[in-house]
Amino acid sequence: MNSFGRLFRISIFGESHGKSVGITIDGCPAGLPVSVEDFTTDLTRRKSGAKGTTPRTEADEPHFISGIFQGKTTGAPLTILFENTNIKPKDYSNLREQPRPGHADFVAQKKFGGYGDYSGGGHFSGRLTVALVAAGVIAKKIINPIEVSAKILEVGGKKNIPAAIDEAVANKDSIGGLIECTASKMPIGLGEPFFDAVESLISHIIFAIPATKGIEFGSGFAAADMKGSEHNDLIISADGQTQTNLAAGINGGISNGNDLVFRVAVKPTSSISLSQNTFNFANNAVEELKVEGRHDACIALRIPPVIEAATAIVLADLMLIEQKVKRVF
Amino acid sequence: MNSFGRLFRISIFGESHGKSVGITIDGCPAGLPVSVEDFTTDLTRRKSGAKGTTPRTEADEPHFISGIFQGKTTGAPLTILFENTNIKPKDYSNLREQPRPGHADFVAQKKFGGYGDYSGGGHFSGRLTVALVAAGVIAKKIINPIEVSAKILEVGGKKNIPAAIDEAVANKDSIGGLIECTASKMPIGLGEPFFDAVESLISHIIFAIPATKGIEFGSGFAAADMKGSEHNDLIISADGQTQTNLAAGINGGISNGNDLVFRVAVKPTSSISLSQNTFNFANNAVEELKVEGRHDACIALRIPPVIEAATAIVLADLMLIEQKVKRVF
Amino acid sequence: MNSFGRLFRISIFGESHGKSVGITIDGCPAGLPVSVEDFTTDLTRRKSGAKGTTPRTEADEPHFISGIFQGKTTGAPLTILFENTNIKPKDYSNLREQPRPGHADFVAQKKFGGYGDYSGGGHFSGRLTVALVAAGVIAKKIINPIEVSAKILEVGGKKNIPAAIDEAVANKDSIGGLIECTASKMPIGLGEPFFDAVESLISHIIFAIPATKGIEFGSGFAAADMKGSEHNDLIISADGQTQTNLAAGINGGISNGNDLVFRVAVKPTSSISLSQNTFNFANNAVEELKVEGRHDACIALRIPPVIEAATAIVLADLMLIEQKVKRVF
Amino acid sequence: MNSFGRLFRISIFGESHGKSVGITIDGCPAGLPVSVEDFTTDLTRRKSGAKGTTPRTEADEPHFISGIFQGKTTGAPLTILFENTNIKPKDYSNLREQPRPGHADFVAQKKFGGYGDYSGGGHFSGRLTVALVAAGVIAKKIINPIEVSAKILEVGGKKNIPAAIDEAVANKDSIGGLIECTASKMPIGLGEPFFDAVESLISHIIFAIPATKGIEFGSGFAAADMKGSEHNDLIISADGQTQTNLAAGINGGISNGNDLVFRVAVKPTSSISLSQNTFNFANNAVEELKVEGRHDACIALRIPPVIEAATAIVLADLMLIEQKVKRVF
Repeated sequence: MNSFGRLFRISIFGESHGKSVGITIDGCPAGLPVSVEDFTTDLTRRKSGAKGTTPRTEADEPHFISGIFQGKTTGAPLTILFENTNIKPKDYSNLREQPRPGHADFVAQKKFGGYGDYSGGGHFSGRLTVALVAAGVIAKKIINPIEVSAKILEVGGKKNIPAAIDEAVANKDSIGGLIECTASKMPIGLGEPFFDAVESLISHIIFAIPATKGIEFGSGFAAADMKGSEHNDLIISADGQTQTNLAAGINGGISNGNDLVFRVAVKPTSSISLSQNTFNFANNAVEELKVEGRHDACIALRIPPVIEAATAIVLADLMLIEQKVKRVF
Repeated sequence: MNSFGRLFRISIFGESHGKSVGITIDGCPAGLPVSVEDFTTDLTRRKSGAKGTTPRTEADEPHFISGIFQGKTTGAPLTILFENTNIKPKDYSNLREQPRPGHADFVAQKKFGGYGDYSGGGHFSGRLTVALVAAGVIAKKIINPIEVSAKILEVGGKKNIPAAIDEAVANKDSIGGLIECTASKMPIGLGEPFFDAVESLISHIIFAIPATKGIEFGSGFAAADMKGSEHNDLIISADGQTQTNLAAGINGGISNGNDLVFRVAVKPTSSISLSQNTFNFANNAVEELKVEGRHDACIALRIPPVIEAATAIVLADLMLIEQKVKRVF
Repeated sequence: MNSFGRLFRISIFGESHGKSVGITIDGCPAGLPVSVEDFTTDLTRRKSGAKGTTPRTEADEPHFISGIFQGKTTGAPLTILFENTNIKPKDYSNLREQPRPGHADFVAQKKFGGYGDYSGGGHFSGRLTVALVAAGVIAKKIINPIEVSAKILEVGGKKNIPAAIDEAVANKDSIGGLIECTASKMPIGLGEPFFDAVESLISHIIFAIPATKGIEFGSGFAAADMKGSEHNDLIISADGQTQTNLAAGINGGISNGNDLVFRVAVKPTSSISLSQNTFNFANNAVEELKVEGRHDACIALRIPPVIEAATAIVLADLMLIEQKVKRVF
Repeated sequence: MNSFGRLFRISIFGESHGKSVGITIDGCPAGLPVSVEDFTTDLTRRKSGAKGTTPRTEADEPHFISGIFQGKTTGAPLTILFENTNIKPKDYSNLREQPRPGHADFVAQKKFGGYGDYSGGGHFSGRLTVALVAAGVIAKKIINPIEVSAKILEVGGKKNIPAAIDEAVANKDSIGGLIECTASKMPIGLGEPFFDAVESLISHIIFAIPATKGIEFGSGFAAADMKGSEHNDLIISADGQTQTNLAAGINGGISNGNDLVFRVAVKPTSSISLSQNTFNFANNAVEELKVEGRHDACIALRIPPVIEAATAIVLADLMLIEQKVKRVF
């Protein structure tokens, strides 16, 4: 489904090499000031250009199609478009016969009977995350005063990130990364039992971001090795502050007011310049494949603002459901 | 929200110490044979009774309220009830003043203004997973020939599981665990872009299961440390079989026909007999708390059938959406 | 789909001659006092027993399965069951071969491959409206101070209702009826553009009630014959009161504070004692059919409380979405 | 909510005088041929220009933003934009102080705190139906061989339509109209109990179309006056054909294979050139209002293709749910 959310509901559309990618936000409260400049910081953080990212660059200017009037949200659906301009559709012509390993090429062909737009991954491309970041800019306004912040912990298993990137680029290879996201100044009571636990909604949208392989909240996988006497976060004050925060600010799926903390594992980009031996369906044989096109050596570098946006989108929805959003009027 | 799914849609209800817990399945195809005996294996696997599990035992007999006629599903909503019989409501009377650390007591009180049923965790209790397992029994019939199987990999960080349990029980403590789930004989093409990736839906429902702290698919967190040349699963046959399966049978959120594999981290049970120092709201001070009641020393032991059920529920929905379910008529 | 609503969300289940019919309400605010007695008035109004209604009578006692604790709603899903006791399954055995005209027998058999519970209409029975009325009792508490009131305008085209009923019963026939529903003390601003106009949601649930054939709001079908200068409701006060109310208290799908008014056409009960000539699939020929069982001569008589409930359910959902419900805590 | 549908799901956005209006279709099967020319007939039927319609004309050229590749649908979300070019925003500047009677001006101001785009009705404008018609063009391809056809039965209570229009224009007034829609070659089994009866879904979307006041299926309001012996449609053949069709091809909310037939009442356009006495909030008094701008004397004339589109959208969704859509691959 291309939609997500209950009251703050987003619908995403577009393809990597199509005209535009875009997003419609339904349920955005009226009266929020919105300007093009509001989007600059997060869109720039997501942009390529730095070492280890793809040479394909896009202007990424948000076009407000609907839902904004005289600089403020109207309460009607808010649609934002981003044009695709830096497109080289020829790079991808051979992947129908020899799908790139690790990519969605093969499954897309099977699922959509070969009718999918295969250029640059089509609808499966990381390009669509620009729209997610845009919705996140709006969501961050709604969840105020909650602050969401994501950062790279390490790439390719190393904390010295520039060196790891240099090595991957030199090897014509790619590397994965680990990202941590924290939401602070959380209200108590977000999350809806039974199925809409905070972790349920966040993991749902996080795994929609291409290249994510794992998510853990607070203690996460370490919890499997722990004892209850170590793991329980003791409450130490009347507002619910806990001594430790292994629960990541969530009990029973509901926020407890302490920081929401989670980590996301990002796989190495599937597109690498090194040649690989994979199946060629035209020749019915395993053959060498050299992936053309422009790639990120470490896509994880560009994902922190996407994760922030995804988190803010979930929190905006939950805050509206719990009636925690301050109304402008 | 207490509902989950698009075509195969479940709605769960009940409390730990209420009359019954139950589940309604909407969208179950007509004509599936269903008997009480079909539920025995999975319900028994989830049951307590073994060392390391709570002394509270329930008959767990499924009562078919609707949707089954002459031993077969009718196509109308299918409701299954489980009575709660082994109830001791008095065990939990003090947790309003001194919420148990690691539990939902505090957040439930805040979210529902003190009106929630606090006995045994109420709606937040692991008791509700009996209903999830029941829905899984139905779902497993629908996804045939897919086979879903979950198992404990280790508890408390140890592969010698009985020894680890013995130690925890002796220490009046609890321990976490790690569970792996595999779905084999998967069709190609399950999962819906952009937001309903297979991983998105599975993680959504997995985090609704109490005590889950992390999930990873295939390579998972190890992917963060890897290179693309190591991580890419090379296709080696015309049906899409891959040499390795680090992608866990999923590319771009869509199943590729290889096994779906994921691991779930389960925290140690919050309820332990060891006393803990936590906030007493009546006295406005940190005080010793001794949690009464009956507890699992290692709740992870009972979770594999719940994870299987959750997985089957997601796959049943996706197979119906993708029209992969064999119709009986 | 057996569910309806966004924040106040109901899921209905059961069959006419099954064990029970029931409803689960998700999203009911915590802290509302609820007792069995609260249901008596509306359930009694819906009950049979009066002249023109079926001799099948049921106790219709609501059983609270979940979501109520110490006499108040908990915020968790609220499930209410009604047992079916007065059942005669043998009455309906021949309708598989010769489906009753005007009934769902034929389509149910086709849609569910003959696996549907055909006794007394199964899931298609008007019996399920008892559950809808129960949900309406809860909804009416939420929408306070809005008052919803439905009444019979005429049956069989006549305002002298007892005489019309007498005639129908004497003729072994059935008659239709016309019902009007008014919601007064409406707040301004309920309804969500574009698709969730107040009229959209109300008509959606009204046509789920068996036997409804038409709905019109305010001027309704008369509007087709009118001029704009006659039809426009002129605003005459600062709170939005209008001189006339042809718009039925709704503009652009949004409530304007004036009374919500609509009328519903109910067809004559399909089950009549008069014999009819209809297709017999066993004999592949049109043959005489005499419908056995117990029937309402005028089902419209029992529908006003159902329409009130349906209206209250929609308004409860819209009030929660618009944050117009007074919180208890 | 700005979305509608379960598998074939549309999201609509835009304002009367904004940059564009548009629609995103999620769940459209891959492989359907789509060209700009496919839209010409229905868009032209909806267009203004004829006597009795507004002098505002728009090119109404569909721009495919996503979801179409090499002339065919891809299976990814399909977004279509229509630019607004013929805009005169100044016409509507005074309606904040003196809301037009019969319009959404007053409720929009209250609901969205005055932040709504009030030009030409903003998101509440009939302009958005151009997007609905576009989605209908796609839906009609999916429901093939079902044929949907809507026509005007009468306007202003008269069957001589040109004369009635002439009179309304001469009087600077507007008139309502009555429209009938028929879907033929219907499959058996569309519609989902309990809440997604065919009538429920159709009425839901029909009342989202501005100016609709009533809907009736088959016998409709006449059913209230009838006897069961008159109303029951006797089945006369093995494929379910009925002698009469008072049920409008629907029993128990499920299609029975006979024609689906319903009528819709459309009110007279609220905007008329005749002056009216209505409340002026700036002066806190009832004062004369002369509505500026360009209006339809009989908006009903332009609605038949919108009703067809709405019907096709519902049927496409129900056919996908019931797996009745022929797959291209």
